[in-house]
Amino acid sequence: MQPPAIQDLYPDDFAHCYGCGRLNAHGLHVRSTWDGDETVARLTPRPEHVAVPGFVYGGLVASLIDCHGIGTAALVVARTAGGETSPPQRFVTAALHVDYVRPTPLGTELEARGRVAEIGARKVVVDVEVLAHGEVCARGRVVAVRLPESMRTPGSAS
Amino acid sequence: MQPPAIQDLYPDDFAHCYGCGRLNAHGLHVRSTWDGDETVARLTPRPEHVAVPGFVYGGLVASLIDCHGIGTAALVVARTAGGETSPPQRFVTAALHVDYVRPTPLGTELEARGRVAEIGARKVVVDVEVLAHGEVCARGRVVAVRLPESMRTPGSAS
Repeated sequence: MQPPAIQDLYPDDFAHCYGCGRLNAHGLHVRSTWDGDETVARLTPRPEHVAVPGFVYGGLVASLIDCHGIGTAALVVARTAGGETSPPQRFVTAALHVDYVRPTPLGTELEARGRVAEIGARKVVVDVEVLAHGEVCARGRVVAVRLPESMRTPGSAS
Repeated sequence: MQPPAIQDLYPDDFAHCYGCGRLNAHGLHVRSTWDGDETVARLTPRPEHVAVPGFVYGGLVASLIDCHGIGTAALVVARTAGGETSPPQRFVTAALHVDYVRPTPLGTELEARGRVAEIGARKVVVDVEVLAHGEVCARGRVVAVRLPESMRTPGSAS
């Protein structure tokens, strides 16, 4: 049985994200969980997520890093608070950096592993590696900030 | 009539990219053209490309910056060569950085504008701004490198 992911715990209003929203019928459904002191998310790109034949589109790799970084920020804030927070804090991306260190093969599961580099009152910085067949294909950094008031819709959960 | 985009000129083997391939039935179809000394691409995100309700998913913005940066690299190499190159050089992304400066509204056309920051024998660095309603929502930088041999499939065009 899969452990619950942080994205499973977001209020419905924050569960529509194309990358990680459980309620987005067309989305990627990135799901982030703890694995010891790291976080992990696994994603098998679809055949259409191609760059040149045989390799994964860089934007898909960036999307995986982005959403797993945001999920990791929510996970660490929940853990730092001493356990479960209900509902979890919802973060958004202030900055995203990706270094593509080798071509990412298509047709296999990708593993994203996250580590928290910095945690502050307003932002969390997360480093994410993306691996295929155990080899690092991309390294990324996500600067996650708490959802600003300007992105809350009337009546949405906090 | 729309001017031809650099992506229209790629050989078929390099026209499957999820972000900008004309042959990808599920893709975003980013199309990059010159506009004076800048390059431009326009994209209207689909309703499913949502982050939180009303705003565009950051991974989509990153994908637009990525593909328009790669397209701009091909455009500038073609122009530097003194005119059309046929077929254009195909670049891939070595690094991608995005700063999200304000939430990107969903439901309107986005405009990506590219400028070449550096051009070398092996790489081209491109700065891209993404605007909605004339306001900058994201600023990005793409380090584009020539397609490595390891990503060429047997029989593919050069």
